[in-house]
Amino acid sequence: MSDYQTPAPGAGMDAFFLARGIAVIGASAEPTKIGGRPVHLLRRHGYAGSIYPINPKGGEIQGLPAYARLADTPEAPELALIAVPASHAVQAVQDCAARGVRAVVVLSSGFAEAGDEGAAWQAEMRAIALRHGMRLLGPNCLGTVGVAERAIGSFSVALEDYFPQAGAVGIVSQSGNIGSYTLQLLVQRGVGISRMVTTGNEAEVDLADGIAALARDPATRVILCCMETCRDGERLTQALAIAREHQTPVVVLKIGATEQGQAAAASHTGALAASDAVIDAVLRRHGALRVRSHEDLVEIGQALGQLMPIGQPHCLPRKPAVTLVAASGGFGIMMADAMSEAGLALPALAPATRARIHQVLPGASTSNPVDASAQISSRPDILFEVLSALQEDPGEATTVLFLSLGLYSSRLRDIYLQALAQLRAAYPQRPLVIISRGPAEAVVQIQALGIPVFSSIDAAARGIDALVRMAALLDAAPAAAPAVNGTGARLPEDTFRNEYAAKQALIDAGFEVPRELRAADAEAAVKAAEALGYPVVLKILSEDIAHKTEAGGVALNLGDAEAVRAASARIFASVARHAPDARLDGLLVAPMLRGGTELIAGISRDPVFGPVVMVGMGGIYAEVLRDVAVQPAPVSEDQATAMIRSLRLFPLLDGARGQAPADVAAAARAVARLSEFACAHREQVAEIDLNPILVRPQGQGIAILDALMVPLTPEPETAHAQ
Amino acid sequence: MSDYQTPAPGAGMDAFFLARGIAVIGASAEPTKIGGRPVHLLRRHGYAGSIYPINPKGGEIQGLPAYARLADTPEAPELALIAVPASHAVQAVQDCAARGVRAVVVLSSGFAEAGDEGAAWQAEMRAIALRHGMRLLGPNCLGTVGVAERAIGSFSVALEDYFPQAGAVGIVSQSGNIGSYTLQLLVQRGVGISRMVTTGNEAEVDLADGIAALARDPATRVILCCMETCRDGERLTQALAIAREHQTPVVVLKIGATEQGQAAAASHTGALAASDAVIDAVLRRHGALRVRSHEDLVEIGQALGQLMPIGQPHCLPRKPAVTLVAASGGFGIMMADAMSEAGLALPALAPATRARIHQVLPGASTSNPVDASAQISSRPDILFEVLSALQEDPGEATTVLFLSLGLYSSRLRDIYLQALAQLRAAYPQRPLVIISRGPAEAVVQIQALGIPVFSSIDAAARGIDALVRMAALLDAAPAAAPAVNGTGARLPEDTFRNEYAAKQALIDAGFEVPRELRAADAEAAVKAAEALGYPVVLKILSEDIAHKTEAGGVALNLGDAEAVRAASARIFASVARHAPDARLDGLLVAPMLRGGTELIAGISRDPVFGPVVMVGMGGIYAEVLRDVAVQPAPVSEDQATAMIRSLRLFPLLDGARGQAPADVAAAARAVARLSEFACAHREQVAEIDLNPILVRPQGQGIAILDALMVPLTPEPETAHAQ
Repeated sequence: MSDYQTPAPGAGMDAFFLARGIAVIGASAEPTKIGGRPVHLLRRHGYAGSIYPINPKGGEIQGLPAYARLADTPEAPELALIAVPASHAVQAVQDCAARGVRAVVVLSSGFAEAGDEGAAWQAEMRAIALRHGMRLLGPNCLGTVGVAERAIGSFSVALEDYFPQAGAVGIVSQSGNIGSYTLQLLVQRGVGISRMVTTGNEAEVDLADGIAALARDPATRVILCCMETCRDGERLTQALAIAREHQTPVVVLKIGATEQGQAAAASHTGALAASDAVIDAVLRRHGALRVRSHEDLVEIGQALGQLMPIGQPHCLPRKPAVTLVAASGGFGIMMADAMSEAGLALPALAPATRARIHQVLPGASTSNPVDASAQISSRPDILFEVLSALQEDPGEATTVLFLSLGLYSSRLRDIYLQALAQLRAAYPQRPLVIISRGPAEAVVQIQALGIPVFSSIDAAARGIDALVRMAALLDAAPAAAPAVNGTGARLPEDTFRNEYAAKQALIDAGFEVPRELRAADAEAAVKAAEALGYPVVLKILSEDIAHKTEAGGVALNLGDAEAVRAASARIFASVARHAPDARLDGLLVAPMLRGGTELIAGISRDPVFGPVVMVGMGGIYAEVLRDVAVQPAPVSEDQATAMIRSLRLFPLLDGARGQAPADVAAAARAVARLSEFACAHREQVAEIDLNPILVRPQGQGIAILDALMVPLTPEPETAHAQ
Repeated sequence: MSDYQTPAPGAGMDAFFLARGIAVIGASAEPTKIGGRPVHLLRRHGYAGSIYPINPKGGEIQGLPAYARLADTPEAPELALIAVPASHAVQAVQDCAARGVRAVVVLSSGFAEAGDEGAAWQAEMRAIALRHGMRLLGPNCLGTVGVAERAIGSFSVALEDYFPQAGAVGIVSQSGNIGSYTLQLLVQRGVGISRMVTTGNEAEVDLADGIAALARDPATRVILCCMETCRDGERLTQALAIAREHQTPVVVLKIGATEQGQAAAASHTGALAASDAVIDAVLRRHGALRVRSHEDLVEIGQALGQLMPIGQPHCLPRKPAVTLVAASGGFGIMMADAMSEAGLALPALAPATRARIHQVLPGASTSNPVDASAQISSRPDILFEVLSALQEDPGEATTVLFLSLGLYSSRLRDIYLQALAQLRAAYPQRPLVIISRGPAEAVVQIQALGIPVFSSIDAAARGIDALVRMAALLDAAPAAAPAVNGTGARLPEDTFRNEYAAKQALIDAGFEVPRELRAADAEAAVKAAEALGYPVVLKILSEDIAHKTEAGGVALNLGDAEAVRAASARIFASVARHAPDARLDGLLVAPMLRGGTELIAGISRDPVFGPVVMVGMGGIYAEVLRDVAVQPAPVSEDQATAMIRSLRLFPLLDGARGQAPADVAAAARAVARLSEFACAHREQVAEIDLNPILVRPQGQGIAILDALMVPLTPEPETAHAQ
């Protein structure tokens, strides 16, 4: 599209937030119009830099002198917002480039989302921006908000009535509306915001830029990201690496997770979509936390905002365990259900903890959950004492207090706030979480103490689990990308010809394939079987027969020469009947192996991420359950082990029901090697299918029993005619 | 406990709501005290009957004449609320009985939940109530609320500030706090309430009474039920049958679903708990809808309240399909994800529908979800036209409109309300749902139009799915309880002795067990094998060996006499080594059967529901996945079929990957027969384990390959010494 290189993720993004002057091209006197609202918002919320309304009519706009042309402004603005119709936007971008503007937000719509003409304009704008090293956000976006700087490059309605308070949470969203809605919900709950970036059509600046820019922003401690599609896998992983380097958690709502959602996303963004499973794997691998709903994004985002204050160490819970308190047994049971469903443990309280609770609440049940009865809210000192006992409990679990109706009573609210403030002061680093639906003012007051408030028991359960996982991600060293073995030397021409050839390529690359022999006819097969030892398997070799079993081209468990002869005859006859025109390469003679568990592994090609490695349990059960794990290739052995362990049927490899544990290490080595092989030969190999792989008992390795390789470009037909 | 019979579920419950006079025993002048608040609430909210405060001091209480003794009141009150300390409650209940009070609420606590003395008082109160045919609610409960009658038998704080408006939703809860919280959340969302019953310790009145009473109340169209434990399975199923008869949907939040939750429930209620899986099955079978969180209870409850208006046919959606509208593509994708994850289809819109939308919104995407752009809220007539096009779409899907920020703007809110009011008038019966987080006043206004408002996309997805299932439950004829075959004639004494004996009992009952023979030694085994035909299986027969394989007591696939001889010797030697003291009954010789899919089926004993029948996929995969379905016995063949179809691995029986479909009908017959067998012999049989059952291809039946029966009372040791 352009000879100029795309900037690295996040490069030059500061201009959107730190611009000392902002031009609004297509400025309007009407504050509700797309060209009027940014001027209005910048003035209303106290942007300290210069605002330059640009309008051919000149004169005055919303009390500011307007300029007929960008060239007329007394100094070059660092940021320009473009609100002119799509047909005029290319010229406006050109003007910005000529004037030395550092960054442009194209707020207008009518580009790639509207048809071919718009797509062409969008491509032109991109080319201009790249040529001039000017960052270009949008088009068809809601732009940017820098809270501390009050730099508003947006026409979001959410900013009409209020402006967020400055805080630790940054928002990056492809959809302007989702970004704006996220902002509003956080603001309603008293959560401070650092910056928001919405990328719209992503002509030039993309989600990766937004993530990287916020990761480098010292004011941002948490990034909430709403992703519709990923157009560039490498930029995304680079941005996630930058966030990891800066210890900035990234929480991602990736929408379009289902087939129906993907269909809607494709019609909305027009982008070639990466597989949701692959994006999911990428996020996990690079330390981002994926959430499944917008509610979870907001709930977890607000909690992270409380627990990762700027300039202080985070106080995320590190143990997946909770101590629960409610004024009623029923709520305790509900909490116990939800927490244990989210994988959180309910440790027993230490005797000393129980004794302390019993002293102030003789009637309370002091197991976990603590059924504290209504007495707990009778006096702040009682509440404080019960909660401090739990905060000091040696189990180091997160203390969770459920408040059903209490905060609606002003008398009780005062008691709660007093006790909670005292508690936070006494134990600033110990994890404490409140569950309450409201009222909103009370929730804001508790959040202001630095205590996260979840709006429901389920949200809290998922949220605490997420916080613990996030703490582990922040503590973990980033996984090193595995080195890709092999130079990528071209595979022999006939690698894709048949199973034998594919296996030879795998053997050359060091994979564990049993010794197998080719045989032209029945007698050669007998000789081969005798060399290998009985029992053996026979399979037809042909580049034209993909499903050998269906064609009658396979015979298992042949115990002697007679059986081999008979089977050879049967196979040749059956194949001649099923595929009379197939070009045959004889028979493959292989030892009949037993004793182990079957895995499948393979390589496929993702339109965005390239080679993807898959591993799953073998057999029909696994097929019915679709029990597989995927990752972009390459993966390390550790990552491959994690993939195998993530299978639902992994217990079958791990010694379920008294079986010998399988050689998972050898299987993981094979998966990692397969992923490296696919990368090394990415120019030649489109797909690989190893099905099945026999995984033997621990220490005995694996055996790849069948292999299929599909070339990236089909071999020309003439290659075989010679 | 008492010779008097427990009243049928719901009998005499009217007295709690329709009482013309209410006594408060232990009345207090202080309106925040447990004995003061009911007097205060009854007066404050305008109860029209007589209020009789009872207090030994007499005088005046809260402006009413107080009576020293219940006997002193000018007439016998129909309802009495008891708020005296636990130690005085028995006497108070006795006084009520003597005075001819029809119903009593014991609000005080300190009974079974507090220790043995309290448990004894509770038992005495129960006995008095049963003896006098007086209904007794509680103790340790939050009592009752009758909204239309303003009959308040409660001290719930939730009633201090406001009183619910009369409406279609009834609440039954064991936990007073959960009931009260549910009430409050519904009231906040503008949902009308009919009655609330909280049953606390359930000395006499239980959850089943509450369900039955509300089902018979003409003002209640929907019952929301919070269950901690079920103490009497039969009463519960009777109550659910009454609700079904009255076409009153019952939505149940059963808490204590997890092990941790059950532990908390056991410590809270002290009740012997029925298995959660069994209660789940009972609810499903009797047409109740189980929800998994309190949020879902409230969300689905409020929607049912809107869609089941009193005196009108319900307008629940009947198709599991939705047409989605949002002002932004991103929200549309989020909705598409959530709806399709909840199992709802997104049908394509008819060309006429698309044309109508295109006419008013030329820029909108007219696929489903409809990406309507912000234009949709520019004018009420545009919104009305888009939504009517969807309401008239021949697909008859539920129309779902997502509003993110719109309702916060008073200008937009007016547009929405105008269009929605018009729409409801034009299509009063067509399903329409709004998703909005608020503000609360706007939500109440929309609900007042009879349009349900869900608070999140996920809640709406789960909610619409629930409404469709509820419509199907209301339409479906109640499942007839299957007749139990067999007279329950005693099984022969030695039925529990070994596999052969158990199988004989099954054969006598008509089960499909292959022909098998007993053999005392190797030569007899050879003879038996020759009678059956090779190959055969040998198994040791012994009442002392539960795990035959582990003891080396099984040999499979024996092809000739020599193999049978060798295997017999091996088995006897191995068993002698593993279990030298075991009493042996010789060998079982069975044909070696193949070709089919394995199921397991069994009977276990639930402490509340009695015999429970289980069916699951056989083999190690199913064991790892815990892929089983349970139901209280007996079940009909249809119910058994539904159980088998509910297995995750059911596709394996249904012809997955080109296999022949299995004889599911024969398997279902066996499961139904097993459940009847267990009921017929419930006095003798504790457990049955049929593992595996070979299910052959369609039309070829099944074969029970192994069977184990455990007697309810172990056979006395001496029986075998003779």
